[in-house]
Amino acid sequence: MSVPLSFSVYGLSTPLITVGDDITAITAKAAEEAAGGFADGDILVLAESPLATAEGRIIRLSDVVPSARAKALAQEYSIDVQLAEIVLQESDEIVGGVPGYLLARRGNLFLPNAGIDESNAPDGMVTLLPENPDASAARVRAEIRERYGKDVAVLVIDSRTHAMRLGVSGVAIGVAGLRPITDERGKKDLFGHELQVTRRAVADGLASTAELLMGEADECTPAVLIRGYQYQKAEQEEIASIAPEEDLFLGMMRK
Amino acid sequence: MSVPLSFSVYGLSTPLITVGDDITAITAKAAEEAAGGFADGDILVLAESPLATAEGRIIRLSDVVPSARAKALAQEYSIDVQLAEIVLQESDEIVGGVPGYLLARRGNLFLPNAGIDESNAPDGMVTLLPENPDASAARVRAEIRERYGKDVAVLVIDSRTHAMRLGVSGVAIGVAGLRPITDERGKKDLFGHELQVTRRAVADGLASTAELLMGEADECTPAVLIRGYQYQKAEQEEIASIAPEEDLFLGMMRK
Repeated sequence: MSVPLSFSVYGLSTPLITVGDDITAITAKAAEEAAGGFADGDILVLAESPLATAEGRIIRLSDVVPSARAKALAQEYSIDVQLAEIVLQESDEIVGGVPGYLLARRGNLFLPNAGIDESNAPDGMVTLLPENPDASAARVRAEIRERYGKDVAVLVIDSRTHAMRLGVSGVAIGVAGLRPITDERGKKDLFGHELQVTRRAVADGLASTAELLMGEADECTPAVLIRGYQYQKAEQEEIASIAPEEDLFLGMMRK
Repeated sequence: MSVPLSFSVYGLSTPLITVGDDITAITAKAAEEAAGGFADGDILVLAESPLATAEGRIIRLSDVVPSARAKALAQEYSIDVQLAEIVLQESDEIVGGVPGYLLARRGNLFLPNAGIDESNAPDGMVTLLPENPDASAARVRAEIRERYGKDVAVLVIDSRTHAMRLGVSGVAIGVAGLRPITDERGKKDLFGHELQVTRRAVADGLASTAELLMGEADECTPAVLIRGYQYQKAEQEEIASIAPEEDLFLGMMRK
């Protein structure tokens, strides 16, 4: 292969993000310091929690009035009753749970506790997911193009445990400017056979890459810049969750 | 933070790997071309399939004599009867399945089809996982230290679909020289609260990073070099799978 296969990953350190902050301006300043500013073809990866905070998506737990259903779920799954109510309000469907977590479906995504985050929020508050992570990614992408004249793909990511694995890694929940899942149907393997595994979770791979520099603790690295990675462009494609009947894990649950 | 947060990722292109090849020498040559050779603190990420091939872990399907149990599993889950037999031989336990896949436990890892790979193997052959991926990682790490005098951590990785996500990304199945799961218990978040999510799947994040350059198709990039990532050293720690009772997905299955 003649194209050199390499890319670089830069953590973008910022001040603490608060409600109403201009995420685009803040990450642009950090990108200037870390990597000389945005460049065409860069990928800007944003953690969901600071982005949601900037968008005002934080609420006070004590303001939440729990419904009867929230009370029942809170008891069944040993979670805070106000948290259960918010998960209900933020979800289209509750598909199950284990102690401490409800598994919620919201649009095309399955989300533990509907993506609600009690870490990195002020006392008594919780951070919701951005209202529409795809729209947030598209907005930041458009602002970068307007203000700095650069073509930068944007991902919004979350931390997630994966089935049968210990520890969290990244998943993409919003995307603009790149194809999140590539389809290799029809491609051949090294011996000329058609590939069995045909879809690659490129956006989740980029999310996990960015997570390596983000930290979950008191490190203000809410964004990461990935430079030099050759991705397939797409203005906006959904990150669809897998259909339950195709899913090895959900498939077993529903038997 | 005063340390610049950044790292680089290099794909290592090689000739087709065959049985008996010296993976350490082959990747060292590719690292020379891509990144000026190995350096202290590098992470060498090896795809399981070429590594297993070099170690002679490929078998001919037609040589396999299926047991009665393999015949029953093959029928129940619509998989090849010889493949079912190999999955049985390579597993400690079959914990479930969906059409096309058996979910197997082998030691401390849960593995779809016991990690057996029909892609990138010669006609009629399948590639098993390395016999002991941790031992393979430790061997390559030791060979690099002996031959080139460099302290390089080594990961062995596989491709995996994740629950409720579309497309494959990377998971680590063998490790030497770095701590695969970091524990942040007792650390505080941005507002001084103790973190709820305390374990980070660093090795899986590095695996997904490497996968971005590996490709599944006819691209000979069996290894990736990650340079500049600050990791916690550990000579060898197991990548334990999560206990089923702590697992959001398995927990639901077993209700």
